[in-house]
Amino acid sequence: MPSSPLSRLFDPRAIAVVGASANEEKPGFQILRALEPFHGAVYPVNPRGGAILGRPVHRSLGEVPGPVDLVALVLPARHSLAVLEDAASVGAGAAFMVSGGFGETGDAGAALETDIAGACLAGGIRLLGPNTSGFLRPSRGLACTFLPAAAALRPGPIGIVAQSGGINLTLAMMANAQGLGVSLAVGLGNAADLGVAETLNYLAADPETRAIVLHLEGVADGRAVFDAVRAAVPVKPVVALPVGRADLAGFAESHTGALMGNHRLTCAALRQAGAAVVETLDDALDAAYALSVTRLNPARDPGIGVLTGQAGPGLLMTDTLRQAGVSVPELAPATVARIAGLLPPLTYMKNPVDTGRPDAGFGAVMEALAADGGIDAVLAYALIEGGALDVGGAAVEAAGKTSKPAVFATAGVPSETAGLVDALRRAGIPVFLAPDRAARAMAAMVADARHRAAEPDGRESAPPGTAPPLTRAVDEDAAKTLVSAYGIPTPKRAVCRSRAEAEAARAAIAGPVVAKVLDPGILHKSDVGGVHVGIETAAALEEALDAIERISNAGYLIEAMAPDGLDLILGARNDPSFGPTVLLGLGGTAAEAVDDVAVALAPLGAGEVDAMIDSLAGSALFGPWRGAPAPDRAAIREAVLGLARLIAEHPEIAEIDLNPVRAYAEGAMALDALIVLRRA
Amino acid sequence: MPSSPLSRLFDPRAIAVVGASANEEKPGFQILRALEPFHGAVYPVNPRGGAILGRPVHRSLGEVPGPVDLVALVLPARHSLAVLEDAASVGAGAAFMVSGGFGETGDAGAALETDIAGACLAGGIRLLGPNTSGFLRPSRGLACTFLPAAAALRPGPIGIVAQSGGINLTLAMMANAQGLGVSLAVGLGNAADLGVAETLNYLAADPETRAIVLHLEGVADGRAVFDAVRAAVPVKPVVALPVGRADLAGFAESHTGALMGNHRLTCAALRQAGAAVVETLDDALDAAYALSVTRLNPARDPGIGVLTGQAGPGLLMTDTLRQAGVSVPELAPATVARIAGLLPPLTYMKNPVDTGRPDAGFGAVMEALAADGGIDAVLAYALIEGGALDVGGAAVEAAGKTSKPAVFATAGVPSETAGLVDALRRAGIPVFLAPDRAARAMAAMVADARHRAAEPDGRESAPPGTAPPLTRAVDEDAAKTLVSAYGIPTPKRAVCRSRAEAEAARAAIAGPVVAKVLDPGILHKSDVGGVHVGIETAAALEEALDAIERISNAGYLIEAMAPDGLDLILGARNDPSFGPTVLLGLGGTAAEAVDDVAVALAPLGAGEVDAMIDSLAGSALFGPWRGAPAPDRAAIREAVLGLARLIAEHPEIAEIDLNPVRAYAEGAMALDALIVLRRA
Repeated sequence: MPSSPLSRLFDPRAIAVVGASANEEKPGFQILRALEPFHGAVYPVNPRGGAILGRPVHRSLGEVPGPVDLVALVLPARHSLAVLEDAASVGAGAAFMVSGGFGETGDAGAALETDIAGACLAGGIRLLGPNTSGFLRPSRGLACTFLPAAAALRPGPIGIVAQSGGINLTLAMMANAQGLGVSLAVGLGNAADLGVAETLNYLAADPETRAIVLHLEGVADGRAVFDAVRAAVPVKPVVALPVGRADLAGFAESHTGALMGNHRLTCAALRQAGAAVVETLDDALDAAYALSVTRLNPARDPGIGVLTGQAGPGLLMTDTLRQAGVSVPELAPATVARIAGLLPPLTYMKNPVDTGRPDAGFGAVMEALAADGGIDAVLAYALIEGGALDVGGAAVEAAGKTSKPAVFATAGVPSETAGLVDALRRAGIPVFLAPDRAARAMAAMVADARHRAAEPDGRESAPPGTAPPLTRAVDEDAAKTLVSAYGIPTPKRAVCRSRAEAEAARAAIAGPVVAKVLDPGILHKSDVGGVHVGIETAAALEEALDAIERISNAGYLIEAMAPDGLDLILGARNDPSFGPTVLLGLGGTAAEAVDDVAVALAPLGAGEVDAMIDSLAGSALFGPWRGAPAPDRAAIREAVLGLARLIAEHPEIAEIDLNPVRAYAEGAMALDALIVLRRA
Repeated sequence: MPSSPLSRLFDPRAIAVVGASANEEKPGFQILRALEPFHGAVYPVNPRGGAILGRPVHRSLGEVPGPVDLVALVLPARHSLAVLEDAASVGAGAAFMVSGGFGETGDAGAALETDIAGACLAGGIRLLGPNTSGFLRPSRGLACTFLPAAAALRPGPIGIVAQSGGINLTLAMMANAQGLGVSLAVGLGNAADLGVAETLNYLAADPETRAIVLHLEGVADGRAVFDAVRAAVPVKPVVALPVGRADLAGFAESHTGALMGNHRLTCAALRQAGAAVVETLDDALDAAYALSVTRLNPARDPGIGVLTGQAGPGLLMTDTLRQAGVSVPELAPATVARIAGLLPPLTYMKNPVDTGRPDAGFGAVMEALAADGGIDAVLAYALIEGGALDVGGAAVEAAGKTSKPAVFATAGVPSETAGLVDALRRAGIPVFLAPDRAARAMAAMVADARHRAAEPDGRESAPPGTAPPLTRAVDEDAAKTLVSAYGIPTPKRAVCRSRAEAEAARAAIAGPVVAKVLDPGILHKSDVGGVHVGIETAAALEEALDAIERISNAGYLIEAMAPDGLDLILGARNDPSFGPTVLLGLGGTAAEAVDDVAVALAPLGAGEVDAMIDSLAGSALFGPWRGAPAPDRAAIREAVLGLARLIAEHPEIAEIDLNPVRAYAEGAMALDALIVLRRA
């Protein structure tokens, strides 16, 4: 018997199909048809008995004549609980449930789904589904699904875990149509038991799987998925397709909550964990295919050499790479000289290298390009031109002389491309039939290589709840006191309960002051006229306090007014799915409207904060800008890291806004602080 | 003889190949091989004579025994001028030049290219190339290229005009591999004579062409391309793939120049002219294919009904559409009720409509969806499930009962999908083998339909040069006077040449004033300390003028200080390629760093200004924002339209910055104005 409980699901020796049917239009027949090539035992089960597709039908699970690893339930939801109990009693280790009618349909279905999960747990059964189309394991002849055509799919190195059963089958079919094969392709459906994280772990350990495609629609356990991707990436490349780009962030009390957005957070988490994030099914398969053949060596900024037989496709590939932030560096003078000796004088040879009509020199040029110290991989394109060189043969020969990976693209009539594609695939060179698809696959390979080069710096944080928790709503002063304790400077300030105290505080602070209402019940002080800036005289202060008292009598905060600088918004949130997270963006109205923010999961390291800054559309403002000195990046970094520690150590906090944090050539300071506690 | 000069190029009756070769590895042989299926006459020409591929070789063009429409030159650049003169002397109407070695190689090549263009003009010859791979006209058996495999491509409705010969062949090969055919596919190369605009005009008039793919790398005559696309779109849909996304804007003296960027302007011009702009070769072909089958009726905001047999692919399609700004509206209650009568109770039926496993109701649901008044087209997906319904047949039947277009996607093993694809194509339903590719094609169809629904409003402008031209550099006051004449308000101001005048001006203006240096030699006044705001007293003014005189003694501008509002940047430019253009973006440092601007060609109408506003990432600021009233959109629109008239009527102006234009709940005002004249 296979060793892990999930092995009894994904690598079963015997499968019982409960709800087997002789009606060819029913799923209970189709699954038996799909299981015909299965290498193990298949037992149809139906109280009516008889025979289907030459197999005897057993009247109950108890009558099945051998041990059963996996029970497939193809019957209405209401019967499922009883069958799961039977399955446990015969010692099955796994179940797969096709039917809908559970959590996706409302409260009654959700209750049934909870019961089913409980029955599986009690009976020692791992469950796939319900409400899914199943899984494919072509190397075992195993198409555990109601789609008989799936039995014809070829085995290969691509593993798939999809939240949607329909996407799983679609991806597997698309891969097959391109001549690619899958190792194990799983559609999770409602995931009453088995979820994304565990399936990822299984694929990471599966020896047949060399690259993983992950389809995500939105998960309740984002942190577990993040951890599973992070654990998989050192072993297997992960390509992620998160759906939900058009989703908007829901209601939130803080700016951070409003800006965070579930899709933004999901994408950020996947990238931070090391996945290559793509936007289309084609790109997902292309990237997984290329990465299943070869990974680039880890490098902070891999350089790609582009080689082309035709200028236009070379420009398109270069543009596609650069648009994705990939470096296409100029070649070293020695490389250019070497290539100049191989090509006619009129061709372009600095990168991209345009060979003109490919001739005998194509392979030698490719070799020279790969030998350049600044080049980590080669992306090559050539049309198949009758009478010209066998470019595929040249590419295979050149690739054999270097350890640097190559990706190839070509176009032509199928009768001419088929042989080239075969030869290149056999030689371990990923090949595509469109130049820009090859470039996007290369960009995914670069993303994979960059992540593995990132130093595992910092990321330390005390365990959640280490710090004494906040037990009730805090005002701005208390919030700033807490923030300061995590190394984030705040302006000099005084809490005042009377006008006399306020005037004394003003007089004690050199320069103009700000007077603010101090009331934990008022979340957005500015919106209600609770903030008064630039106060330089006792009279001006009196006027400000008059205005404040019209809002609240709770107290005043008198604070030194900060000089101008670069305003940022920093935020943090204990997200229900992803746990402690931080947010960084440009401050000010326009920046807020443009929604230019970066998010990351805590704990994180200094390099990850730099990656957040670099990912902002307005990242230029973090360098010298129009003659002004650059803001203090180290201070900004420390503020984000401090906030990440704070949110991780205070699970009782829902959201924190530091809006703005003002950054200077030296230092940075939180001018405001808002803390929202979780609802009890 | 064909009627138009370009007909003699693209629809020739007889072709002479000068530089014909018996060496099978040479292009001079390959082109003869490619021309074997050609329906017309082919005359090899080479001084050596002999025979190639069974055709007698003529020693010169003069010895060719019949009339020649098109001369193909397959020989080194240096021989081309003499051959073109021969071609003219035998009455050829067109030539195609393969060779490189012209403008792309430097000054000497460029001079030769100019000579060649002159010889063609003098000899009445229309020239394709040099430095290109030619063109394909499969319906005539005509592959005028050195790629023999191109002779096997099937004819069809997709026309291609590509600046790169390599991209032209790549697109044609990719189309062929997907079972699609081309009408006329042209690679322009150096375009010494024939360019993008004229080829587009030809394709728009070509009865075989039903949709046009346009590949652009950057053009010197952007305005002509814009006009050609605008003229083509009412007749044929145009799908554009502009390459150069990673290009940066070049050096410029104004913000407008720095922000405009060639690629941004190219994309904006293509969209404004009515093209559907895409980013990949696959998307270009997918969109052209769908649009060659059917166009949606013109509509300002077409609603798409999404129908799916599997939830995950339906979500992916819906997300892809919404991300592209396409409406997927909730269905009318009557439609939901009608669909509820057709589907099991647990399925989702508001849009997307999830049928669950497709059964006999699939076609009826599709019909109900199409009948909804808010739905303009249907996007449907179903996996081919053995034993389930023939979904293709159902789709074909449903499509026959409605006039609203449908696009279909499916996945399965090729043996099962082939028949479905054929049946749907025969029924005039575009079909794709990936759900998100179908959704992106639908988004392109929606872009096409939206443009055709736009009212042809405004766009009037006096002809260039109508207004008296500026003859020398203008200072801010003169710039504002000109801007005011085009209906853009400016603050009350006075030009002062002495301190006494300045103080008198200050005293005459109610409220605080701004003092600025007034010197046409100083482009960026703020950067050098030439702008002093918030002056309320004579003493403060003296201090400001002291500072200004340290920069320049040319004069002062004393101006009423404008209250706070929403700061925008407006700009305009007489672009060397696209002519008069305008720019609109959010003002302020952060917005500038984020580079959130929209551009459009002048003249333009009010609806096009609204489209510019809506395309901004920060467009939310143009509506009510955090309790503040919306800025005056009519005033902003008038300012952009006035600036568009100004730039069109003043060709002597290179660039204009109005930075900022401050918008209020009522009105808008240019607070600064900079005009840069063209260099003589």
